[in-house]
Amino acid sequence: MAEASVKPTPLLKDELDIVIPTIRNLDFLEMWRPFFEQYHLIIVQDGDPSKTIKVPEGFDYELYNRNDINRILGPKASCISFKDSACRCFGYMVSKKKYIFTIDDDCFVAKDPSNKDINALEQHIKNLLSPATPHFFNTLYDPYREGADFVRGYPFSLREGVPTAVSHGLWLNIPDYDAPTQLVKPRERNSRYVDAVLTIPKGALFPMCGMNLAFNRELIGPAMYFGLMGDGQPIGRYDDMWAGWCVKVICDHLGWGVKTGLPYIWHSKASNPFVNLKKEYKGIFWQEDLIPFFQSVVLPKDCTTVQKCYVELSKLVKEKLGPIDPYFIKLSESMVTWIEAWDELNPGGPAQK
Amino acid sequence: MAEASVKPTPLLKDELDIVIPTIRNLDFLEMWRPFFEQYHLIIVQDGDPSKTIKVPEGFDYELYNRNDINRILGPKASCISFKDSACRCFGYMVSKKKYIFTIDDDCFVAKDPSNKDINALEQHIKNLLSPATPHFFNTLYDPYREGADFVRGYPFSLREGVPTAVSHGLWLNIPDYDAPTQLVKPRERNSRYVDAVLTIPKGALFPMCGMNLAFNRELIGPAMYFGLMGDGQPIGRYDDMWAGWCVKVICDHLGWGVKTGLPYIWHSKASNPFVNLKKEYKGIFWQEDLIPFFQSVVLPKDCTTVQKCYVELSKLVKEKLGPIDPYFIKLSESMVTWIEAWDELNPGGPAQK
Repeated sequence: MAEASVKPTPLLKDELDIVIPTIRNLDFLEMWRPFFEQYHLIIVQDGDPSKTIKVPEGFDYELYNRNDINRILGPKASCISFKDSACRCFGYMVSKKKYIFTIDDDCFVAKDPSNKDINALEQHIKNLLSPATPHFFNTLYDPYREGADFVRGYPFSLREGVPTAVSHGLWLNIPDYDAPTQLVKPRERNSRYVDAVLTIPKGALFPMCGMNLAFNRELIGPAMYFGLMGDGQPIGRYDDMWAGWCVKVICDHLGWGVKTGLPYIWHSKASNPFVNLKKEYKGIFWQEDLIPFFQSVVLPKDCTTVQKCYVELSKLVKEKLGPIDPYFIKLSESMVTWIEAWDELNPGGPAQK
Repeated sequence: MAEASVKPTPLLKDELDIVIPTIRNLDFLEMWRPFFEQYHLIIVQDGDPSKTIKVPEGFDYELYNRNDINRILGPKASCISFKDSACRCFGYMVSKKKYIFTIDDDCFVAKDPSNKDINALEQHIKNLLSPATPHFFNTLYDPYREGADFVRGYPFSLREGVPTAVSHGLWLNIPDYDAPTQLVKPRERNSRYVDAVLTIPKGALFPMCGMNLAFNRELIGPAMYFGLMGDGQPIGRYDDMWAGWCVKVICDHLGWGVKTGLPYIWHSKASNPFVNLKKEYKGIFWQEDLIPFFQSVVLPKDCTTVQKCYVELSKLVKEKLGPIDPYFIKLSESMVTWIEAWDELNPGGPAQK
């Protein structure tokens, strides 16, 4: 491995929160007990706040339902989605830790090809603590990994890499397909274990899935807004995508890296494709305009903090996407509300580039 | 797999040449016999032309030594390197086939994790015949592969992909490291089999290694020039890198894709790091300027053929890199000579975008 990461993976137990959005009892945590029990959990309860969510004994957690969100954020609570797992981003906002790992409650521990349980969180920590290489592609993938390095032809000036802001993990069993693909291929399962972590090059966009995701909250937290989805909104299932596109554009601007690949989790159950189609169908049209929009975004040089970048991006959303649908006007306003709420709850001030 | 590739892999035996640069008897072909015997080989003999290179019986081949190159190209033979495996690109020029696979004579058949011999050529053909996806990154890697597809959030308008121009394969055992890394890590071996093929996103550069490489000659052949290396030149071991940077910039401009990943070959022997350092050391400096240069190249819209792109690129090389060293003036002139020679030997005319 390249010199930068020759050290054991720290646990970061005082520096990392696990954020879980849910509407049900968290029995799935039993399987994760050996890996999660020493961490603090932030549970964001979606839907009916009068319902009681059971958390298995022995876990250290705080739980927020809709009443809590309304109480804490007041009128600014409007920026947090309801009846959609996009509500999870409230957990990012109330955390006080440097790192966040977020996972869906239908995701279980996967096995590697040697049949060993995969400690997903440990791999995310490795990914976040080692640099990223967005400025030049390394054909042997992550150069900081044991047994790998930079190959011939990789410029030496780029080998220090850049800070890693995001670690995007993948899914065995049920792949993260859209409704049309689910409908066409109801039986497709992902059984391919690809033993790689790679940095998504600067300038390239990707579909960021929120199912198994970790990030450096101190660096990129204020851009991890999952948008307006679900109840009262014309769209769902684009929360993580929206966040991913915003985050990637801002990471590219500020010189930070986004990694994808390992770790895998076991995604147990496909959501209903008919319900999904209803949530997605406007998004399927809109994304044809969203991608060229995000590909063309150029942030001004004086945007030196994530907050400044994000507010600037919100203006571009209003100006360029507003004409597509009034939803984007509302979304752009919520983006600003989100930043205001973030700064209220996190008064320490933003990380500078 | 996405719909486009639901068919068995054709052999393409009348449409593909295998190009091998060598200075020795080709005993390594014995191991490749089951996979290569039905193909035509183009052997480019480097070094002393009076030496006889033995080719195992049963292979169909043509062999060119330096005298042949000089006879066929006349004064234009100056663009073909001598005493360097960069001479292999002469083989691309004299081929009349649509596809080229080129391999080094110290590369053997690798085994996959189930201990099965890997048919590298078959995988390259799969890669070349299925589309590439340079405009948006797919987190489950090659979406055209069995068991995979485009994930949620991948724009539908981009799912047809674009033609694949290059398939860059990898190496187990001896990794393709530069001399400094070889010196620091003499014992490092690559034992990680990463079961993935991916498209290198538009705008990202990569270090293209010529050891295990296939391409669509009809599309990108005229840009596969391996430059001036070896005898009489101040540099070596940047032949494939140079080609890769030129090719990637032109593929990005013309809308074609470059893939990397599978297949693996078994790279048997590390070359001498001291000799390599001597060949590379100027390149190690120069590449710090070359990468920003290639990252900044913008080809004019009227460059609609590879030839036009390549000649335009040669002008930029002269103008922007010439001031670094007179070598780049000479190289830029050779780039033009190469295109002239290519067009003489391939009078059919260039492929239009």
